[in-house]
Amino acid sequence: MQISELGEFGLIDRLTEGLKPSNASTLQGVGDDCAVLAYEGAGRRVLVTSDMLMEGIHFDLVYTPLKHLGYKAAMVNFSDVYAMNGTPRQLLVSVAVGSRFQVEHLDELYAGLRLACERHGVDLVGGDTCSSVTGLALSLTCIGDAEASEVVMRSGAQENDLICVSGNLGAAYMGLQLMEREKRVFESRPATDVEAAQPDFSGHEYLIERLLKPEARRDIVSQLRAAGLRPTAMMDISDGLSSELLHICKASHCGCRIYEERIPLDYQTAVCAEEFNMNVTTCALNGGEDYELLFTLPLSQHEQAARLEDVKIIGAITRPDLGSVLVTRDGQEFPLKAQGFKAF
Amino acid sequence: MQISELGEFGLIDRLTEGLKPSNASTLQGVGDDCAVLAYEGAGRRVLVTSDMLMEGIHFDLVYTPLKHLGYKAAMVNFSDVYAMNGTPRQLLVSVAVGSRFQVEHLDELYAGLRLACERHGVDLVGGDTCSSVTGLALSLTCIGDAEASEVVMRSGAQENDLICVSGNLGAAYMGLQLMEREKRVFESRPATDVEAAQPDFSGHEYLIERLLKPEARRDIVSQLRAAGLRPTAMMDISDGLSSELLHICKASHCGCRIYEERIPLDYQTAVCAEEFNMNVTTCALNGGEDYELLFTLPLSQHEQAARLEDVKIIGAITRPDLGSVLVTRDGQEFPLKAQGFKAF
Repeated sequence: MQISELGEFGLIDRLTEGLKPSNASTLQGVGDDCAVLAYEGAGRRVLVTSDMLMEGIHFDLVYTPLKHLGYKAAMVNFSDVYAMNGTPRQLLVSVAVGSRFQVEHLDELYAGLRLACERHGVDLVGGDTCSSVTGLALSLTCIGDAEASEVVMRSGAQENDLICVSGNLGAAYMGLQLMEREKRVFESRPATDVEAAQPDFSGHEYLIERLLKPEARRDIVSQLRAAGLRPTAMMDISDGLSSELLHICKASHCGCRIYEERIPLDYQTAVCAEEFNMNVTTCALNGGEDYELLFTLPLSQHEQAARLEDVKIIGAITRPDLGSVLVTRDGQEFPLKAQGFKAF
Repeated sequence: MQISELGEFGLIDRLTEGLKPSNASTLQGVGDDCAVLAYEGAGRRVLVTSDMLMEGIHFDLVYTPLKHLGYKAAMVNFSDVYAMNGTPRQLLVSVAVGSRFQVEHLDELYAGLRLACERHGVDLVGGDTCSSVTGLALSLTCIGDAEASEVVMRSGAQENDLICVSGNLGAAYMGLQLMEREKRVFESRPATDVEAAQPDFSGHEYLIERLLKPEARRDIVSQLRAAGLRPTAMMDISDGLSSELLHICKASHCGCRIYEERIPLDYQTAVCAEEFNMNVTTCALNGGEDYELLFTLPLSQHEQAARLEDVKIIGAITRPDLGSVLVTRDGQEFPLKAQGFKAF
């Protein structure tokens, strides 16, 4: 169905049909000039974050199903709220689509958005829908909350704090390399070669999943809370471990020392890096899109930190004049660099 | 200067340099995973709205200075918060730019955004900055607040309520027609004809200003408050009076009856419509981008409503079965239609 058959308001009605708020703070969702929220409890803090995803920069529709794109776009935003030690509550979604898009495409995108919202208890409360002369543009804003005393900034890391990372790093980046390789194979095949049109990801399924369907680490935030641990600093790893660690060091006026051998890697990431003749540590440090949590804990909580599931201690915070250093397997030291992922 | 010389983080630092929060509710602005806000007073409501502006759809950089674009993008969002009878407090700005953009272009855009924020006492607290393979894409989210008892929805209009409109309508639409005409003249001129390259807007300055530099009507909201008037329903006119009135009627389960002769028009709008051989009422009903306020007041407040400055009473709310009707100057009746502005 063409979007013009429904019109803007018909489209919004269809995409937001049956949405029911699940949070007490959501008083009015889609359907007015603004969503209306109640965050009136004393000592509560409201957390807000926005992320934009552009076709051709952040995603390639050749290998990104729209449902996955919607799911991932939501996760990217939830991840920022968890990274403040908060709970995501509301989501606003703005979408600009080109003329090649049909209503069914948007249904798919919203199916992914809704699934992500359901799983994390978030209410879709508004946004904007418009045309684009070219590609698909997505912009999401997530609102969450936390007790004032629970909010964790980037700026609270202290000397001797342990540096911890959840999950493993570099997998989404290797997934991206695989997708790009299969795309090149697909595009250069003879039109009659049906077999070459079937991508081969066997043995790499985990990497593809990490790229297309990342999960915001609510479980880590819950685990920390259950263990009575409050990180001194925290952020999510979207641009690569190096870049994020440097953000924490800058905001907290400190240095850091991390150990290559302790950086968590999945077996598939290591195998795939070798296949591509890449240094797996470089992929883990600069790959980006991991959406894992990076946080610091006081040295005195070492025992509890070591017991956290799916969390690794990779180093420690140091005095600022010692710089930000990676210690390699053979004992050499290198300064960390922020290559970043979203290069202009 | 090329954006790549600064990098993403250098660019963000430059664009957000010296930003100081002016609202007590802004605890932490740009620089972490989320902005942190305090909306903890009992009975306060948080209002949130998002708008996306795409190059080639919502604006044409041939005749839109970037500073004006930034200013307008902010106003469009503030207008939504005022339309709920609230006060805008924080703004998040996401920008995607193509490779033809330089740092100075973004400086201009942010100069407009900052000016708008200063004038309306709003804090710029976050957003996202990224590349675009094609045009400029802007997505803004505004957060505001209001006392629970002061929030005005679209759904509260009652039979016999007066329908009121601020300012005048159709001017921005005529400004757009003028700009498009001058653009065609400019593009079809011989390259040597310097004179044709100078657009001629004499006598139409007001229309151009309405298009390029709209003002969100905080003054109307203040005036209503000072007069002790609380609208039963309110929204801002972005897609055209017809379309917005139908939204109110749908949300409030009512009909309406408005009078052509009472629709507020500026003299320049009328002259320009004649020049373009257009029906000025059609322009006022469907033109869009007026960013005036449309609201309803109980009939019992007729006297106070009539005394409001820069506000006109254009009709009344009716029973739903009477439909939504325009009464023309010669007494004929026509059903209102939602042509809308942002057509897909």
